[in-house]
Amino acid sequence: MTNNTATTQEESIALITPASLLQHWQVHRKLSRKVLVAFPEKELFSFSIGGMRPYDELVKEMIGLASAGMNGIATGKWETTPLLDHFNSEANITSKQELLEAWDEVTEQIDNFWAQIPVAHFHDIVMAFGMYENTVLDTILYFIENEIHHRGQGYVYLRALGFEPPAFWDRS
Amino acid sequence: MTNNTATTQEESIALITPASLLQHWQVHRKLSRKVLVAFPEKELFSFSIGGMRPYDELVKEMIGLASAGMNGIATGKWETTPLLDHFNSEANITSKQELLEAWDEVTEQIDNFWAQIPVAHFHDIVMAFGMYENTVLDTILYFIENEIHHRGQGYVYLRALGFEPPAFWDRS
Repeated sequence: MTNNTATTQEESIALITPASLLQHWQVHRKLSRKVLVAFPEKELFSFSIGGMRPYDELVKEMIGLASAGMNGIATGKWETTPLLDHFNSEANITSKQELLEAWDEVTEQIDNFWAQIPVAHFHDIVMAFGMYENTVLDTILYFIENEIHHRGQGYVYLRALGFEPPAFWDRS
Repeated sequence: MTNNTATTQEESIALITPASLLQHWQVHRKLSRKVLVAFPEKELFSFSIGGMRPYDELVKEMIGLASAGMNGIATGKWETTPLLDHFNSEANITSKQELLEAWDEVTEQIDNFWAQIPVAHFHDIVMAFGMYENTVLDTILYFIENEIHHRGQGYVYLRALGFEPPAFWDRS
Protein backbone atom coordinates (compact mmCIF):
# COMPACT_ATOMS: atom_id res chain seq x y z
CA MET A 1 0.00 0.00 0.00
CA THR A 2 1.25 3.48 -0.82
CA ASN A 3 -1.29 5.32 1.33
CA ASN A 4 -1.32 4.38 4.98
CA THR A 5 -3.26 7.30 6.39
CA ALA A 6 -6.27 5.20 7.35
CA THR A 7 -4.37 2.20 8.60
CA THR A 8 -1.88 3.83 10.96
CA GLN A 9 -4.46 4.83 13.58
CA GLU A 10 -6.62 1.75 13.66
CA GLU A 11 -4.96 -0.89 15.78
CA SER A 12 -7.21 -0.33 18.78
CA ILE A 13 -10.47 -0.17 16.81
CA ALA A 14 -12.73 -3.18 17.21
CA LEU A 15 -14.22 -4.19 13.89
CA ILE A 16 -15.38 -7.63 14.91
CA THR A 17 -15.84 -8.79 18.49
CA PRO A 18 -16.09 -12.40 19.70
CA ALA A 19 -19.85 -11.96 20.12
CA SER A 20 -20.36 -10.58 16.61
CA LEU A 21 -18.14 -13.27 15.08
CA LEU A 22 -20.13 -16.00 16.83
CA GLN A 23 -23.38 -14.52 15.56
CA HIS A 24 -21.94 -14.16 12.06
CA TRP A 25 -20.99 -17.84 12.00
CA GLN A 26 -24.31 -19.05 13.39
CA VAL A 27 -26.19 -17.04 10.77
CA HIS A 28 -24.06 -18.70 8.08
CA ARG A 29 -24.77 -22.08 9.68
CA LYS A 30 -28.49 -21.44 9.33
CA LEU A 31 -28.03 -21.01 5.59
CA SER A 32 -25.83 -24.12 5.48
CA ARG A 33 -28.57 -26.05 7.26
CA LYS A 34 -31.09 -24.91 4.63
CA VAL A 35 -28.78 -26.17 1.87
CA LEU A 36 -28.57 -29.54 3.63
CA VAL A 37 -32.38 -29.65 3.95
CA ALA A 38 -32.71 -28.89 0.22
CA PHE A 39 -30.83 -32.07 -0.77
CA PRO A 40 -32.72 -35.20 -1.83
CA GLU A 41 -31.98 -38.06 0.59
CA LYS A 42 -30.37 -40.52 -1.80
CA GLU A 43 -28.24 -38.06 -3.76
CA LEU A 44 -27.02 -36.42 -0.56
CA PHE A 45 -25.01 -39.59 0.07
CA SER A 46 -24.18 -40.54 -3.51
CA PHE A 47 -24.20 -37.69 -6.02
CA SER A 48 -20.79 -36.49 -7.13
CA ILE A 49 -19.31 -34.25 -9.81
CA GLY A 50 -15.79 -34.71 -11.19
CA GLY A 51 -14.79 -37.30 -8.60
CA MET A 52 -15.54 -34.98 -5.68
CA ARG A 53 -17.01 -36.19 -2.40
CA PRO A 54 -20.81 -36.47 -2.10
CA TYR A 55 -22.35 -33.59 -0.16
CA ASP A 56 -22.85 -35.64 3.03
CA GLU A 57 -19.08 -35.90 3.33
CA LEU A 58 -18.66 -32.16 2.93
CA VAL A 59 -21.29 -31.61 5.65
CA LYS A 60 -19.52 -34.13 7.89
CA GLU A 61 -16.32 -32.16 7.37
CA MET A 62 -18.13 -28.96 8.45
CA ILE A 63 -19.57 -30.76 11.49
CA GLY A 64 -16.26 -32.35 12.45
CA LEU A 65 -14.24 -29.16 12.04
CA ALA A 66 -16.72 -27.13 14.08
CA SER A 67 -17.24 -29.69 16.84
CA ALA A 68 -13.68 -30.90 17.34
CA GLY A 69 -12.25 -27.52 16.40
CA MET A 70 -14.21 -25.55 18.97
CA ASN A 71 -13.55 -28.25 21.57
CA GLY A 72 -9.84 -27.90 20.80
CA ILE A 73 -9.90 -24.14 21.03
CA ALA A 74 -11.85 -24.14 24.29
CA THR A 75 -10.26 -27.13 26.05
CA GLY A 76 -7.16 -28.19 24.10
CA LYS A 77 -8.80 -31.50 23.08
CA TRP A 78 -9.13 -31.58 19.28
CA GLU A 79 -11.89 -34.16 19.16
CA THR A 80 -15.66 -34.29 18.83
CA THR A 81 -17.37 -34.13 22.19
CA PRO A 82 -19.65 -36.55 24.07
CA LEU A 83 -22.67 -34.74 22.64
CA LEU A 84 -22.01 -36.61 19.42
CA ASP A 85 -21.30 -39.96 21.07
CA HIS A 86 -24.55 -41.60 20.06
CA PHE A 87 -23.41 -41.23 16.47
CA ASN A 88 -20.07 -42.89 17.37
CA SER A 89 -18.47 -40.91 14.60
CA GLU A 90 -19.67 -38.72 11.76
CA ALA A 91 -18.80 -41.56 9.39
CA ASN A 92 -21.68 -43.62 10.83
CA ILE A 93 -24.33 -41.06 9.95
CA THR A 94 -26.32 -42.54 7.08
CA SER A 95 -29.51 -40.45 6.89
CA LYS A 96 -30.27 -36.79 6.35
CA GLN A 97 -32.23 -36.73 9.59
CA GLU A 98 -29.16 -37.87 11.57
CA LEU A 99 -27.00 -35.32 9.78
CA LEU A 100 -29.47 -32.58 10.72
CA GLU A 101 -29.49 -33.77 14.35
CA ALA A 102 -25.70 -33.71 14.44
CA TRP A 103 -25.77 -30.26 12.84
CA ASP A 104 -28.11 -28.96 15.54
CA GLU A 105 -26.02 -30.48 18.32
CA VAL A 106 -22.97 -28.73 16.96
CA THR A 107 -24.87 -25.44 16.83
CA GLU A 108 -25.29 -25.77 20.60
CA GLN A 109 -21.70 -26.96 21.11
CA ILE A 110 -20.34 -23.90 19.32
CA ASP A 111 -22.30 -21.58 21.61
CA ASN A 112 -21.17 -23.47 24.71
CA PHE A 113 -17.50 -23.71 23.77
CA TRP A 114 -17.47 -20.10 22.65
CA ALA A 115 -18.54 -18.95 26.09
CA GLN A 116 -15.53 -20.80 27.56
CA ILE A 117 -12.94 -18.98 25.45
CA PRO A 118 -11.25 -16.12 27.27
CA VAL A 119 -11.23 -13.07 25.02
CA ALA A 120 -7.43 -12.83 25.09
CA HIS A 121 -7.19 -16.40 23.75
CA PHE A 122 -8.48 -15.32 20.32
CA HIS A 123 -5.06 -13.89 19.50
CA ASP A 124 -3.09 -16.86 20.87
CA ILE A 125 -1.35 -19.22 18.47
CA VAL A 126 -2.71 -22.77 18.59
CA MET A 127 -1.80 -25.98 16.75
CA ALA A 128 -5.24 -26.97 15.46
CA PHE A 129 -5.69 -30.75 15.30
CA GLY A 130 -2.00 -31.02 16.21
CA MET A 131 -1.10 -29.82 12.71
CA TYR A 132 -2.25 -26.35 11.71
CA GLU A 133 -0.48 -23.51 13.48
CA ASN A 134 -2.48 -20.30 13.51
CA THR A 135 -4.16 -17.81 15.82
CA VAL A 136 -7.45 -18.88 17.35
CA LEU A 137 -9.16 -16.13 15.36
CA ASP A 138 -7.73 -17.26 12.01
CA THR A 139 -8.50 -20.88 12.87
CA ILE A 140 -12.16 -19.99 13.43
CA LEU A 141 -12.26 -17.87 10.27
CA TYR A 142 -10.91 -20.92 8.45
CA PHE A 143 -13.80 -23.06 9.79
CA ILE A 144 -16.34 -20.46 8.63
CA GLU A 145 -14.77 -19.93 5.22
CA ASN A 146 -14.28 -23.65 4.64
CA GLU A 147 -18.01 -24.02 5.28
CA ILE A 148 -18.86 -21.24 2.79
CA HIS A 149 -16.50 -22.84 0.23
CA HIS A 150 -18.03 -26.32 0.46
CA ARG A 151 -21.57 -24.98 0.76
CA GLY A 152 -21.00 -23.15 -2.53
CA GLN A 153 -20.10 -26.52 -4.03
CA GLY A 154 -23.37 -27.88 -2.65
CA TYR A 155 -25.17 -25.18 -4.65
CA VAL A 156 -23.66 -26.62 -7.85
CA TYR A 157 -24.68 -30.16 -6.86
CA LEU A 158 -28.24 -28.97 -6.19
CA ARG A 159 -28.42 -27.11 -9.52
CA ALA A 160 -27.02 -30.14 -11.34
CA LEU A 161 -29.75 -32.24 -9.67
CA GLY A 162 -32.43 -29.78 -10.76
CA PHE A 163 -33.08 -28.28 -7.32
CA GLU A 164 -33.20 -24.56 -6.51
CA PRO A 165 -30.78 -23.77 -3.65
CA PRO A 166 -31.69 -21.20 -0.99
CA ALA A 167 -30.58 -17.68 -1.92
CA PHE A 168 -26.98 -16.97 -0.86
CA TRP A 169 -27.94 -13.52 0.41
CA ASP A 170 -30.91 -14.76 2.49
CA ARG A 171 -29.70 -14.87 6.08
CA SER A 172 -33.14 -15.06 7.70
CA MET B 1 -26.24 -18.74 25.15
CA THR B 2 -26.52 -19.77 28.77
CA ASN B 3 -22.97 -18.82 29.69
CA ASN B 4 -22.05 -15.22 29.04
CA THR B 5 -18.88 -14.96 31.08
CA ALA B 6 -16.66 -14.65 28.04
CA THR B 7 -18.90 -12.35 26.05
CA THR B 8 -19.77 -9.72 28.61
CA GLN B 9 -16.31 -8.18 28.76
CA GLU B 10 -15.41 -8.17 25.12
CA GLU B 11 -16.97 -5.20 23.43
CA SER B 12 -13.78 -3.18 23.37
CA ILE B 13 -11.54 -6.03 22.23
CA ALA B 14 -10.35 -5.77 18.64
CA LEU B 15 -10.50 -9.12 16.92
CA ILE B 16 -10.15 -7.84 13.39
CA THR B 17 -8.84 -4.42 12.43
CA PRO B 18 -9.29 -2.67 9.08
CA ALA B 19 -5.67 -3.50 8.20
CA SER B 20 -6.03 -7.19 9.02
CA LEU B 21 -9.36 -7.42 7.17
CA LEU B 22 -7.80 -5.86 4.06
CA GLN B 23 -4.92 -8.31 4.21
CA HIS B 24 -7.32 -11.21 4.76
CA TRP B 25 -9.30 -10.27 1.64
CA GLN B 26 -6.24 -9.74 -0.53
CA VAL B 27 -4.87 -13.15 0.49
CA HIS B 28 -8.22 -14.68 -0.54
CA ARG B 29 -8.05 -12.75 -3.81
CA LYS B 30 -4.67 -14.34 -4.53
CA LEU B 31 -6.27 -17.77 -4.27
CA SER B 32 -9.21 -16.60 -6.41
CA ARG B 33 -6.73 -15.39 -9.04
CA LYS B 34 -5.07 -18.85 -9.05
CA VAL B 35 -8.47 -20.47 -9.64
CA LEU B 36 -9.05 -18.11 -12.59
CA VAL B 37 -5.59 -18.95 -13.98
CA ALA B 38 -6.38 -22.67 -13.69
CA PHE B 39 -9.37 -22.41 -16.09
CA PRO B 40 -9.01 -23.38 -19.72
CA GLU B 41 -9.68 -20.34 -21.96
CA LYS B 42 -12.69 -21.62 -23.88
CA GLU B 43 -14.52 -23.27 -21.00
CA LEU B 44 -13.97 -20.23 -18.78
CA PHE B 45 -16.51 -18.43 -20.98
CA SER B 46 -18.78 -21.32 -21.89
CA PHE B 47 -18.78 -24.23 -19.41
CA SER B 48 -21.83 -24.47 -17.18
CA ILE B 49 -23.41 -26.95 -14.77
CA GLY B 50 -27.15 -27.09 -14.10
CA GLY B 51 -27.91 -23.86 -15.95
CA MET B 52 -25.51 -21.81 -13.82
CA ARG B 53 -23.44 -18.95 -15.21
CA PRO B 54 -20.06 -19.78 -16.78
CA TYR B 55 -17.13 -18.98 -14.48
CA ASP B 56 -16.18 -15.76 -16.33
CA GLU B 57 -19.50 -14.29 -15.20
CA LEU B 58 -18.87 -15.25 -11.60
CA VAL B 59 -15.43 -13.61 -11.79
CA LYS B 60 -16.98 -10.50 -13.36
CA GLU B 61 -19.39 -10.38 -10.43
CA MET B 62 -16.45 -10.54 -8.00
CA ILE B 63 -14.65 -7.80 -9.95
CA GLY B 64 -17.74 -5.59 -10.19
CA LEU B 65 -18.69 -5.97 -6.53
CA ALA B 66 -15.17 -5.21 -5.35
CA SER B 67 -14.52 -2.31 -7.70
CA ALA B 68 -17.87 -0.54 -7.53
CA GLY B 69 -18.43 -1.64 -3.95
CA MET B 70 -15.19 -0.21 -2.60
CA ASN B 71 -15.69 2.94 -4.67
CA GLY B 72 -19.13 3.28 -3.10
CA ILE B 73 -17.86 2.75 0.40
CA ALA B 74 -14.99 5.20 -0.02
CA THR B 75 -16.69 7.89 -2.12
CA GLY B 76 -20.44 7.21 -2.17
CA LYS B 77 -20.35 6.41 -5.92
CA TRP B 78 -21.44 2.79 -6.41
CA GLU B 79 -19.79 2.33 -9.79
CA THR B 80 -16.61 0.92 -11.27
CA THR B 81 -13.89 3.51 -11.46
CA PRO B 82 -11.93 5.02 -14.38
CA LEU B 83 -9.21 2.41 -13.87
CA LEU B 84 -11.52 -0.03 -15.64
CA ASP B 85 -12.56 2.40 -18.38
CA HIS B 86 -10.55 0.80 -21.14
CA PHE B 87 -12.71 -2.29 -20.67
CA ASN B 88 -15.87 -0.12 -20.98
CA SER B 89 -17.62 -2.63 -18.79
CA GLU B 90 -16.89 -6.06 -17.39
CA ALA B 91 -19.34 -7.47 -19.91
CA ASN B 92 -16.91 -6.61 -22.72
CA ILE B 93 -14.08 -8.71 -21.34
CA THR B 94 -13.77 -11.70 -23.64
CA SER B 95 -10.39 -13.25 -22.81
CA LYS B 96 -8.79 -14.70 -19.71
CA GLN B 97 -5.91 -12.26 -20.09
CA GLU B 98 -8.27 -9.28 -19.93
CA LEU B 99 -10.04 -10.78 -16.92
CA LEU B 100 -6.69 -11.17 -15.16
CA GLU B 101 -5.76 -7.57 -15.99
CA ALA B 102 -9.08 -6.34 -14.61
CA TRP B 103 -8.54 -8.53 -11.53
CA ASP B 104 -5.12 -6.97 -10.93
CA GLU B 105 -6.46 -3.44 -11.39
CA VAL B 106 -9.11 -4.13 -8.80
CA THR B 107 -6.47 -5.46 -6.41
CA GLU B 108 -4.89 -2.02 -6.57
CA GLN B 109 -8.23 -0.22 -6.37
CA ILE B 110 -9.14 -2.06 -3.18
CA ASP B 111 -5.88 -0.97 -1.53
CA ASN B 112 -6.38 2.62 -2.65
CA PHE B 113 -10.04 2.92 -1.66
CA TRP B 114 -9.35 1.17 1.65
CA ALA B 115 -6.85 3.84 2.61
CA GLN B 116 -9.55 6.49 2.05
CA ILE B 117 -12.04 4.95 4.50
CA PRO B 118 -12.01 6.59 7.92
CA VAL B 119 -11.89 3.90 10.59
CA ALA B 120 -15.17 5.06 12.14
CA HIS B 121 -16.92 4.59 8.79
CA PHE B 122 -16.68 0.79 9.07
CA HIS B 123 -19.56 0.80 11.54
CA ASP B 124 -21.72 3.25 9.56
CA ILE B 125 -24.82 2.00 7.79
CA VAL B 126 -24.66 2.39 4.01
CA MET B 127 -27.08 1.58 1.21
CA ALA B 128 -24.80 -0.48 -1.04
CA PHE B 129 -25.61 -0.06 -4.73
CA GLY B 130 -28.64 1.96 -3.63
CA MET B 131 -30.30 -1.25 -2.47
CA TYR B 132 -28.59 -3.21 0.30
CA GLU B 133 -28.66 -1.57 3.71
CA ASN B 134 -25.90 -2.77 6.00
CA THR B 135 -22.85 -1.62 7.91
CA VAL B 136 -19.72 -0.97 5.87
CA LEU B 137 -18.07 -3.88 7.67
CA ASP B 138 -20.85 -6.35 6.87
CA THR B 139 -20.98 -5.06 3.29
CA ILE B 140 -17.27 -5.83 2.87
CA LEU B 141 -17.66 -9.23 4.56
CA TYR B 142 -20.40 -9.93 2.03
CA PHE B 143 -18.03 -9.13 -0.85
CA ILE B 144 -15.41 -11.50 0.58
CA GLU B 145 -17.83 -14.31 1.35
CA ASN B 146 -19.60 -13.98 -2.00
CA GLU B 147 -16.16 -14.43 -3.59
CA ILE B 148 -15.45 -17.56 -1.50
CA HIS B 149 -18.93 -18.92 -2.37
CA HIS B 150 -18.54 -18.49 -6.14
CA ARG B 151 -14.89 -19.55 -6.09
CA GLY B 152 -16.00 -22.80 -4.45
CA GLN B 153 -18.34 -23.28 -7.41
CA GLY B 154 -15.36 -22.72 -9.71
CA TYR B 155 -13.66 -25.65 -7.97
CA VAL B 156 -16.55 -27.91 -9.04
CA TYR B 157 -16.38 -26.61 -12.62
CA LEU B 158 -12.62 -27.29 -12.71
CA ARG B 159 -13.06 -30.82 -11.30
CA ALA B 160 -15.87 -31.51 -13.78
CA LEU B 161 -13.51 -30.38 -16.57
CA GLY B 162 -10.76 -32.67 -15.29
CA PHE B 163 -8.51 -29.94 -13.86
CA GLU B 164 -6.98 -29.95 -10.38
CA PRO B 165 -7.90 -26.70 -8.56
CA PRO B 166 -5.39 -24.97 -6.27
CA ALA B 167 -5.62 -26.20 -2.67
CA PHE B 168 -8.23 -24.25 -0.67
CA TRP B 169 -5.88 -24.03 2.30
CA ASP B 170 -2.91 -22.75 0.28
CA ARG B 171 -2.73 -19.02 0.90
CA SER B 172 0.84 -18.51 -0.34
